[in-house]
Amino acid sequence: MLPDSLKQIALFFERLPGIGEKTANRLALYLLRMPASDLQDFAKEICGICADTKRNHAIITVIESPLDLLSFEKGGIYSGVYHVLHGRIDPLNNIGPDDIYIEQLLQRLEKDKEGVLEVVLATNPDMEGEATAMYIQKKIKTQNSNQNIKITRLAYGLPMGASVEYADYGTLGKAMENRKSF
Amino acid sequence: MLPDSLKQIALFFERLPGIGEKTANRLALYLLRMPASDLQDFAKEICGICADTKRNHAIITVIESPLDLLSFEKGGIYSGVYHVLHGRIDPLNNIGPDDIYIEQLLQRLEKDKEGVLEVVLATNPDMEGEATAMYIQKKIKTQNSNQNIKITRLAYGLPMGASVEYADYGTLGKAMENRKSF
Repeated sequence: MLPDSLKQIALFFERLPGIGEKTANRLALYLLRMPASDLQDFAKEICGICADTKRNHAIITVIESPLDLLSFEKGGIYSGVYHVLHGRIDPLNNIGPDDIYIEQLLQRLEKDKEGVLEVVLATNPDMEGEATAMYIQKKIKTQNSNQNIKITRLAYGLPMGASVEYADYGTLGKAMENRKSF
Repeated sequence: MLPDSLKQIALFFERLPGIGEKTANRLALYLLRMPASDLQDFAKEICGICADTKRNHAIITVIESPLDLLSFEKGGIYSGVYHVLHGRIDPLNNIGPDDIYIEQLLQRLEKDKEGVLEVVLATNPDMEGEATAMYIQKKIKTQNSNQNIKITRLAYGLPMGASVEYADYGTLGKAMENRKSF
């Protein structure tokens, strides 16, 4: 799923000893992310999916990193489009809302007022990811033209193949709280 | 949370080299599970929770093993009562519905017709656990007196602290499918 140009960089890394596919991808992406100009070039690369007319453009999944996109794409579980934040709000590391691609998401929604029906916030299920999702959710809701957009969040619960016995109680608590009717 | 008598056996195992608390509990329980008569004794031991009038008897969580109970209790995330199946339906290992405590669950519901409002099926999120949950759900629904009991299932999704990048696509698919509105 990596664009060709990135794939080349990743493949180069993969030839080095002790570096597998996942690490190679990570390194390739890291290199790209360092200077801002490269970041933008990269964002354009990724947009191959957004240009695909076969995908459902009414639903945008917001993710922290392009690697998250690969997780979704590998499973073939999603046919909508993505918005990559390139980070998450993380005050301890001096990353604020303006340091990631939130404004660009709002502009994107503004541009396609009628087209987007749902934004799925798929930031990671930890403190920073949660905070980032909350922030974005509020921003979208206060932007006047977005009143009809449905905002959702990935479900928390037991992962497939897990066991109740070894589940941490935070996860078990969420699984209980969000239990579904048969 | 183990009853005193069991705790004694577990503590004995824990003194042996290389055996921690979790394994000790497991071994203690395994010993007890071997002959049917001991199994029944054990079931009575566990019932300390069921006798506790401070707990919510209107909700019964159905689990595969007493160790699952410990997971719930450790987190303090649940104040209802439990029903331990002592196994799960597993045809490859010749374990059928009659080999686990399903009939006893149905009897329990029959006995307390008005009192039980919800049964939470908390079998493991894998093939056998799913099949067991489905079977029990059907059994409860076909039992005439249970028409008003709500039957639920633990939520599937991303575990707390996980990352989208490393989530398997089965889990990610469930997290997407069961996404929640903000």
